[in-house]
Amino acid sequence: MNAMKRPPSPSSLFRTFSGKYIPRIDASMRGFFKEKILDAKLPVIREMYALLSEYCTRKGKRVRPLVMLLACFGYGEEKNADDIIPIAAVLEMMHSFLLIQDDIIDRSDLRRGGQSLHLLCGRRFAGGSHNRNIGSDLALILADVLFAGALKIICESNVPHRAKDRFMKIFSDTYEITAWGQVLDILNSRSKKIVSPGETALQIATMKTAYYTVYYPMLMGYALAGKNSGRERNLIGEFSLPLGLAFQIRDDILGVFGKEKATGKPSDSDILEGKITLLVNGVLERLDRRERSLFISLFTGSKKEKKDIEKIRSIIEESGSLDAAKQQHCDLIDVSRRRLSRLSIADPFRTALGGLVDLIAKI
Amino acid sequence: MNAMKRPPSPSSLFRTFSGKYIPRIDASMRGFFKEKILDAKLPVIREMYALLSEYCTRKGKRVRPLVMLLACFGYGEEKNADDIIPIAAVLEMMHSFLLIQDDIIDRSDLRRGGQSLHLLCGRRFAGGSHNRNIGSDLALILADVLFAGALKIICESNVPHRAKDRFMKIFSDTYEITAWGQVLDILNSRSKKIVSPGETALQIATMKTAYYTVYYPMLMGYALAGKNSGRERNLIGEFSLPLGLAFQIRDDILGVFGKEKATGKPSDSDILEGKITLLVNGVLERLDRRERSLFISLFTGSKKEKKDIEKIRSIIEESGSLDAAKQQHCDLIDVSRRRLSRLSIADPFRTALGGLVDLIAKI
Repeated sequence: MNAMKRPPSPSSLFRTFSGKYIPRIDASMRGFFKEKILDAKLPVIREMYALLSEYCTRKGKRVRPLVMLLACFGYGEEKNADDIIPIAAVLEMMHSFLLIQDDIIDRSDLRRGGQSLHLLCGRRFAGGSHNRNIGSDLALILADVLFAGALKIICESNVPHRAKDRFMKIFSDTYEITAWGQVLDILNSRSKKIVSPGETALQIATMKTAYYTVYYPMLMGYALAGKNSGRERNLIGEFSLPLGLAFQIRDDILGVFGKEKATGKPSDSDILEGKITLLVNGVLERLDRRERSLFISLFTGSKKEKKDIEKIRSIIEESGSLDAAKQQHCDLIDVSRRRLSRLSIADPFRTALGGLVDLIAKI
Repeated sequence: MNAMKRPPSPSSLFRTFSGKYIPRIDASMRGFFKEKILDAKLPVIREMYALLSEYCTRKGKRVRPLVMLLACFGYGEEKNADDIIPIAAVLEMMHSFLLIQDDIIDRSDLRRGGQSLHLLCGRRFAGGSHNRNIGSDLALILADVLFAGALKIICESNVPHRAKDRFMKIFSDTYEITAWGQVLDILNSRSKKIVSPGETALQIATMKTAYYTVYYPMLMGYALAGKNSGRERNLIGEFSLPLGLAFQIRDDILGVFGKEKATGKPSDSDILEGKITLLVNGVLERLDRRERSLFISLFTGSKKEKKDIEKIRSIIEESGSLDAAKQQHCDLIDVSRRRLSRLSIADPFRTALGGLVDLIAKI
């Protein structure tokens, strides 16, 4: 009607897509848990399914399921959305599976603006038990309930066999590689001796973020669309890896300089954990030998005061590592933008993916 | 040739079957890990896959994979064994997944005559870290590596689609129900207040043992044989549940009165954990009110001396609960023997299953 009307911007297209599908992903999870609650014979199982339902559907960006849906629709058809949304919900439930374990390992109290699951379970059940770890013990097993549920949803999903087989193979790769990333992360955190920190930080960022958050979700969507070209899978990798690394660098920066309100976690948690991120590695590369060893002993120390945290922040800034990380983030975003244009993905999904790139571009 | 030659006894048939297939199940696991070790690019991943390989292939009874194989061959054909053995190996890897988590929760040092995985990881990596929990943190994630590997093996297995779909559904039920059994077990251990202990102990034994160890493995084997009769599945349930409960009661008795050398775990661990098993519940039912509350405070106390453990053992014996448990065990074995005869399972697999019943019959 109005030829002068501007086409929607990529980021508004992505936001429209999110606004349409996040409620459907969440409704799919809620529906799954509701049925489980109805079927459960024991009150304690009903109560725990309700806990899981609340935990999994907390406000979040739903990046992984959205990326999977964009790829699936962009390489296939949106009209099968009803069959695919339960699988997008599976990715989010599996994300909760990992977050629960992550919080047990990091002893975090907070997740997505609520209590971590082990804290919730502890508060609810510690009073009746001599077991002081009952919260983490229960949360650990509740994570398993999520993975069993995820498998059930995949089994029952209405996807052709070949596509489902290819999906399942990538699904298993996803949690294998992510687990190795987590192993490296554990070894790298609060470590007494720092060996080739840059290489390790890059490996962790690649496995735990680039593969986990962008590459595998895209590949899973591509497989669910029924496609299987090796060439296109490579192009998907070339687009996803720089985008995923940019995502991680952004996260590293926000993990040190971000506001708790925006990130949903305490802004000193990354520093307290003593993780050698790419950002922190940039500091190590920029200090002389003496400064470096002072910084390392401050940063990897097991007890950090508030003034230590402030000191660490200012060293990261003054060393020039913060600016360098911002520059690297910007360069990676540019690369992924160029590579997005090479994918054989249909519009408006390509544009919406570009919108995601734009959102990751903002720090 | 020799018409007078006696047919092999059921338990010797089961032993022959175990002797034939346990090495093939273990070889399948070793082959999987060997390939992973060859493919791994980082030394630390190779090292950890080697740890997992040693852990998963430790000497064990392999009850679940063997039951699955007996059902699969007895309802289908043994000639497909090569396609099915990797899936039997998956059940054993998933068993290790649960054992790793179990040992983290129970803080056990010993598993199958070796160190628990979290202890192994702790000894190997604690020296280099300020993280005192690094052993359990790593073991928790290594368990995830096993489940991802298990999914991959299932994906790649050569089983017709319909059978695989039915298998996967039971597979997911298995780990859901087992997880709920574990949740009840955690709530029931070291609990300050004991509410309907008999009912709870029965639920835990049903979910964590009868379903997990006998019923679901048989159902999975039945599904892999390509069969799907609701009537036969019910008959499998009627056979498995009493057998599984008998298995648990035997385990409860050995957990209190067994020798460490035979069971592979310290013979006081069940008492130290303060678990209200069916055996312990039998004590509660047999004591008067005063004795009962004395026993409960002794049994659920968080710190037990050697003399407390001896006292608990003698109360279990003198109350008559031990004899009653042995009688119940015997009755359940009789029921499962009769029900085995109703299954439409072919010989020699039916007889070999009978041999398993005979082994579980011995305390």
